[in-house]
Amino acid sequence: MNRRAFFLSTAVLALAAAPAAADEGMWTFDNFPAAKMKADYGWAPDQAWLNRVQNAAVRLTGGCSASFVSPQGLILTNHHCVASCLFDNSNDASDYLNKGYVADRRDLELKCPGQQAEVVTKITDVTSDVKAVFGTLTGEALTKARDAKIAEIEKAGCTDTATTRCQVVTLFGGGQYKLYTYRKYSDVRLVWAPEDRAATFGGDPDNFNFPRYSLDASFLRAYENGKPVATPNHLKWSPRPPKEGEATFVVGNPGSTNRLFTQSQLAFEREVRLPVTVATYSELRGRLIRAMDESPAHAREGLDELNGIENSLKVYIGRVKALNDPAFTGKLAAAEADLKAKGAGGADPWTTVDAAVTAYRSLYLPMRFTQPSSELYSYAQALVFAAQERTKPNGERLPGYTDSALPLTEKRLLDEKPIYPWLDELTLEWSLSKAREYLGADDPDTKLLLGKASPEGLAQSLVSGSKLADPAVRKALWDGGMKAIRASDDPMIVYALRLADRQRELKQKADAVYTAPLTIAGSQLADARFAAYGDTLYPDATFTLRISYGKVAGWNERGNDVPFMTTMGGTFDRATGSEPYDAPSAFLANKAKIDPATAYDFVTTNDIIGGNSGSPVIDRAGAVIGAAFDGNINSLGGNYGYDGTVNRTVVVSTDAVQEALEKIYPAPALVKELAAK
Amino acid sequence: MNRRAFFLSTAVLALAAAPAAADEGMWTFDNFPAAKMKADYGWAPDQAWLNRVQNAAVRLTGGCSASFVSPQGLILTNHHCVASCLFDNSNDASDYLNKGYVADRRDLELKCPGQQAEVVTKITDVTSDVKAVFGTLTGEALTKARDAKIAEIEKAGCTDTATTRCQVVTLFGGGQYKLYTYRKYSDVRLVWAPEDRAATFGGDPDNFNFPRYSLDASFLRAYENGKPVATPNHLKWSPRPPKEGEATFVVGNPGSTNRLFTQSQLAFEREVRLPVTVATYSELRGRLIRAMDESPAHAREGLDELNGIENSLKVYIGRVKALNDPAFTGKLAAAEADLKAKGAGGADPWTTVDAAVTAYRSLYLPMRFTQPSSELYSYAQALVFAAQERTKPNGERLPGYTDSALPLTEKRLLDEKPIYPWLDELTLEWSLSKAREYLGADDPDTKLLLGKASPEGLAQSLVSGSKLADPAVRKALWDGGMKAIRASDDPMIVYALRLADRQRELKQKADAVYTAPLTIAGSQLADARFAAYGDTLYPDATFTLRISYGKVAGWNERGNDVPFMTTMGGTFDRATGSEPYDAPSAFLANKAKIDPATAYDFVTTNDIIGGNSGSPVIDRAGAVIGAAFDGNINSLGGNYGYDGTVNRTVVVSTDAVQEALEKIYPAPALVKELAAK
Repeated sequence: MNRRAFFLSTAVLALAAAPAAADEGMWTFDNFPAAKMKADYGWAPDQAWLNRVQNAAVRLTGGCSASFVSPQGLILTNHHCVASCLFDNSNDASDYLNKGYVADRRDLELKCPGQQAEVVTKITDVTSDVKAVFGTLTGEALTKARDAKIAEIEKAGCTDTATTRCQVVTLFGGGQYKLYTYRKYSDVRLVWAPEDRAATFGGDPDNFNFPRYSLDASFLRAYENGKPVATPNHLKWSPRPPKEGEATFVVGNPGSTNRLFTQSQLAFEREVRLPVTVATYSELRGRLIRAMDESPAHAREGLDELNGIENSLKVYIGRVKALNDPAFTGKLAAAEADLKAKGAGGADPWTTVDAAVTAYRSLYLPMRFTQPSSELYSYAQALVFAAQERTKPNGERLPGYTDSALPLTEKRLLDEKPIYPWLDELTLEWSLSKAREYLGADDPDTKLLLGKASPEGLAQSLVSGSKLADPAVRKALWDGGMKAIRASDDPMIVYALRLADRQRELKQKADAVYTAPLTIAGSQLADARFAAYGDTLYPDATFTLRISYGKVAGWNERGNDVPFMTTMGGTFDRATGSEPYDAPSAFLANKAKIDPATAYDFVTTNDIIGGNSGSPVIDRAGAVIGAAFDGNINSLGGNYGYDGTVNRTVVVSTDAVQEALEKIYPAPALVKELAAK
Repeated sequence: MNRRAFFLSTAVLALAAAPAAADEGMWTFDNFPAAKMKADYGWAPDQAWLNRVQNAAVRLTGGCSASFVSPQGLILTNHHCVASCLFDNSNDASDYLNKGYVADRRDLELKCPGQQAEVVTKITDVTSDVKAVFGTLTGEALTKARDAKIAEIEKAGCTDTATTRCQVVTLFGGGQYKLYTYRKYSDVRLVWAPEDRAATFGGDPDNFNFPRYSLDASFLRAYENGKPVATPNHLKWSPRPPKEGEATFVVGNPGSTNRLFTQSQLAFEREVRLPVTVATYSELRGRLIRAMDESPAHAREGLDELNGIENSLKVYIGRVKALNDPAFTGKLAAAEADLKAKGAGGADPWTTVDAAVTAYRSLYLPMRFTQPSSELYSYAQALVFAAQERTKPNGERLPGYTDSALPLTEKRLLDEKPIYPWLDELTLEWSLSKAREYLGADDPDTKLLLGKASPEGLAQSLVSGSKLADPAVRKALWDGGMKAIRASDDPMIVYALRLADRQRELKQKADAVYTAPLTIAGSQLADARFAAYGDTLYPDATFTLRISYGKVAGWNERGNDVPFMTTMGGTFDRATGSEPYDAPSAFLANKAKIDPATAYDFVTTNDIIGGNSGSPVIDRAGAVIGAAFDGNINSLGGNYGYDGTVNRTVVVSTDAVQEALEKIYPAPALVKELAAK
């Protein structure tokens, strides 16, 4: 499922990073540009400050960032990062997503399906180990050797898979490989969340816009063995308004950027990927909007999915705009020309990339459209692939099915959560009909997907016939391995088996003609950049821990000054009474109590992107003063580049969260916990 | 409403035409390139041949082309050109669109709302008259003076507005102005149409593709004073298969091309117009697809609209692809460079166009989104504008409301046709929500459109509160003029009045900064082209009569030969039993009778575009051998350029229509009428 705002959306193979300007940069903790910040701000954090902050930073596997804010495992993140959890715990009567949820006691805290909290404990450079296996290999053999080595390193790094997770991360598009070791907490529970409208006031129209009036905050708690975990390393909670111009740090996991895509990679985005994505997602959005109008149950059950689609679409449309803006693309072209002029030590990675992208063009639509969109299908696909892959040695498996990756795959597969057949059928029907549209009715892949059936008929029969919504059925198939899979007459399992060979074949082709050449070219490009620009570089985002610095500041939008902050009282001025500008019911009910001057949302120059949602916004003292939840509209080109004059991070202030905890969605125990020394 | 396949979709201000290559060209009858055709084909028609054909050519104001094929006013066109007529005459029980319709007797022929048939009777060059008023005028004054002169010429040209229509047409983007005089027939009735599936077999997936199995043909009849009109000038009906390589002529009204847009105009298409259009229409498509699933009534009532949207979308997506193809755009850039090198006699129209397009960029979204999409709103808007404009002298009115234009405006407004409130609400809600999305929630135009209402709430109240679906209510408001409009409490009238001033203001701004400079620059560009390329030019399409020549020929699609023709028997091979590949019921019922070898659809190299739908395809003898109904997928860039190696016109053969008239949807009287000498 897709998610909202600065959620991680989609991962793309990134190649390199350019020298950073102004407050630009998503820095790794081992290369924080202290000198540069000090020059600009007159102060920069020291290593002790950085270590303290790093130890309190949390990654949420649902695609968000977060931080510990009490010694009892309390986690601050965004409301939209827990929307799925609220949703998965709801039925028509409880409807926690729309109504909000406050756990009055620990035993009422709600388990979040599929969610896992992770804290980085160690980072090891394994670049030479990984690159040593490349030798003179090319094509699929190269990709296989690299993946096998990574699987081996990850397995050796984390022998205790119950509490640790190991992940090798490719930085600088192949310039560096690092092993990240995480302490993981696979039992994460919901503590507090306001009603949906408080977080989504202004809905899609106000998403990625500012001024904003959004309480996009929530609290989770990490558990282990049924008890809250002890988290002595946590951030101090500082419920105060931001000061204009003060330095701010965002610590979190930006998901993916492609800031130094070569010109041919950018052309592929603009000419192929983005147009297909915008057209097809827009249609899905329309189907879902209409379906949600059909009944209150549909309206509730489709909300989380719709929020995700609309958020993604806004991002994609923003990217289209950025890549159609000659001023923006001119800068990217100039950066490439500068590096080309400096050379890549005799290599020509650009030509390699051009050829790889050309080869990938003919694989893109088949790869995209042979992946039907359905939760039940995703279960079936994971069950089929897991059964097939687990029969192989660790080093020969597909990336998601290595020993280091299996625990999270299993958790996501077996955690209980509701499936709404009408919604699953809607997305499946849509994706099958788009497959036929883009591949063509006579294409062999279309025939593989549909046979003689129509998208409508096939979606209906697969969804209504499958029993995979039942976690016990999934568990039996997971435990039963290939024998159980082959014996299953569940139509979704049969269908996933039918598609699996072709999916593998396409991946092998892409490994050979795209991934392998980019592995080498990426390494060459990174080396060229290191040689040209030294350590003024930050790696493209990879959904791993980063820190960005900046300051609280408004901006000038085509002649108009946009203020740096809103106040809670502004909500009532902006409210029209009509969705999505209907004031949250608890705001209306408690209007007399709410201090209208309370700082609400504010903007900073920090450089963030999807995946950073829920990141703590930290002041010079190392205390948390907000949770980043969005970028402004100008930041939507942030995937490809950063412009400090107009790109802004949007933050919900701790001042507002405190006011809400005290007066709007009261949680006295939480107030006490946050205030404890 | 939007329409299917090679229907006219949208008119854009076109600037110029390039020297034509191969079978390229949509020629006016007074500049047919006989020498060029003779050189290529060894034969070309003489003036008598051209005159004969011209006199039988019919323009349908619904956005199609057609031809007389009997002395009793019988008109051949496409099924998709009469789909609205079938639809508007249907209810749940009759459902003529899905079931087809055969009028066994003349008195059962069905009146088509809003439809008018027109035959060109005279073309007069009025270029010097129009240009004489330009003088040194600029900006809005120039546009006004030009429009006033055009209104004057049109009014003087057609004093009998009951049977004639006068239209001044701008050719070569302002290089020429010509007065077209038409004999008009405002009573057009449906005679014969197959079931929808026969015309739409393969549905959207097969639309714009080939091989194709579509009976996209129908017959209308022109009436006057309640009687069929006498049409001694008609084409001979020749029910025979096409011969590979034989010369073919398409005579019809291509709607709009922009083949020599300057680079800045192309950039505007690629960067602004097309992305907005594809994203928003895709969402509308999704909303409608889902809504049609809700009930059989919705499925029937939404079909015509959905067909139109899907057809338009395919065209727009094809244009995006063309404008993102460097090989394609390179040719356009080279053509501009060639002309620029030859110069424009000291003028610099390119810079003028660049500035006009830049100015238009800031007007485009407001102009687009202050036009809500709703049939009821369209009625209200026409009533309000007509009332306001009719109080002014002819020369000061908006173009659609001059004396020469009013009769068709009135006919379209007052003809009875069904309105489906759920569908009108769906499109209105969509367009209002897209206005808020693209203009922004805080934009003054958004506030004008919505006030404090939501798109959903406003659409519901406007549609449910309006009585404009009743033609008698519209008639009273039309007759009552401003007094009646001001007194009306119909919410749609009140709403149209609320928007009218802003719509006028935006048009005035566009007249000043866009239309006026393009009027001058268009004229300069045309003169430069005439000087450079002489009469080897054809004007961009303007939904006026043109002739294109070509031949029956398949093509090579990425290594595979595509045959030039299909046979009716192929339908049964392609049928899967699932929509939209379910064989038409009458085909199945009459399978034993149908000769499977009957020629069905075929392709030719003729250069056509939307608006050409229904055009007769004529052989060397001047007989009709088919009706053009589509282009192939490669022709979707045809708005900007023609490539004779792969662009094809798709035609339904007279052989197939004859087989259908005799055996599938029997119409013995029609067979007899067509066979008469």
